[in-house]
Amino acid sequence: MSEPDINATIRTYLDTVATGDAAAVAALYAPDATLEDPVGSDVRRGRDAIAEFYGGLAGAELTTELLTARVCGLQAAFHFRVVTTAGDAKYIVEPIDVMTFDADGLITSMRAFWAPSDMTVA
Amino acid sequence: MSEPDINATIRTYLDTVATGDAAAVAALYAPDATLEDPVGSDVRRGRDAIAEFYGGLAGAELTTELLTARVCGLQAAFHFRVVTTAGDAKYIVEPIDVMTFDADGLITSMRAFWAPSDMTVA
Repeated sequence: MSEPDINATIRTYLDTVATGDAAAVAALYAPDATLEDPVGSDVRRGRDAIAEFYGGLAGAELTTELLTARVCGLQAAFHFRVVTTAGDAKYIVEPIDVMTFDADGLITSMRAFWAPSDMTVA
Repeated sequence: MSEPDINATIRTYLDTVATGDAAAVAALYAPDATLEDPVGSDVRRGRDAIAEFYGGLAGAELTTELLTARVCGLQAAFHFRVVTTAGDAKYIVEPIDVMTFDADGLITSMRAFWAPSDMTVA
C-alpha cells in the first residue's frame, strides 16, 4: 500500500473546514479519532462528537489558508489562518494544529494550539 | 506560585540554542525530560542524553529566530528558523516544535516537526 499524501490531506482538511460542512469534516477523521481544540480543553472522541464540534462552524463565512506544514511520516504540525467574516468585521486566528493519521490518511488525532487572546480583528 | 512565562521560556530556549552551549540548553529541560527530534526518531530521555543531542551544535555558527508561538497553559507549539552558516553556505530550516513544561517553566518534553527535505540553502 502506498503512503498517504499527508500534505494533500491537510489541504483537504482546511478546504473542507471552509465549507462549514461538519459531517464532511468529521468524515476526514477515523471513527475513533480524538480532537482537543484548544489544547487543554476536554478531549472529544469519535466522529459524532467531532461532527458536533465542527457544527459550530455552520452558517459562518469562513476562509482558511495553509501557512506552513511540517510532515514526519504519519504525523504533522501545521500553521494556518482562519478568517471569519461577521457583518463588517473579520476575525483572524492562526492556530498551529498537530495531527496524527492512519495508513488510509484518516485523521486519528487533532490538537489545536491557539488561545482566544491570539485572535485579531481586521 | 505564579505561572511560568512560557513565551519567555521559548525565547530563552532559542537564544540558548544559538550559543551552541549544549549543557546550557540541557539545563532548560527537567531532569527526566524527553526529546524527539525529528518526530518519528528515537526518543531521548534525561539531561545527559539531551545534552549529547545538542552537542551536535558545537562549533556551528547558528542563528535562531522565533516566527510564531501558540501557548496553551503549560504546552506550546512554535515555528522558528535556524540558520547555520558553514563557509559560504547558509542552511535554513524552519521546524515546528511542540513542548510541554512543568510549573517551574522547565521543558518536560520536546518534539520537533521537520524533515531534511524542508532544509533550504541560501
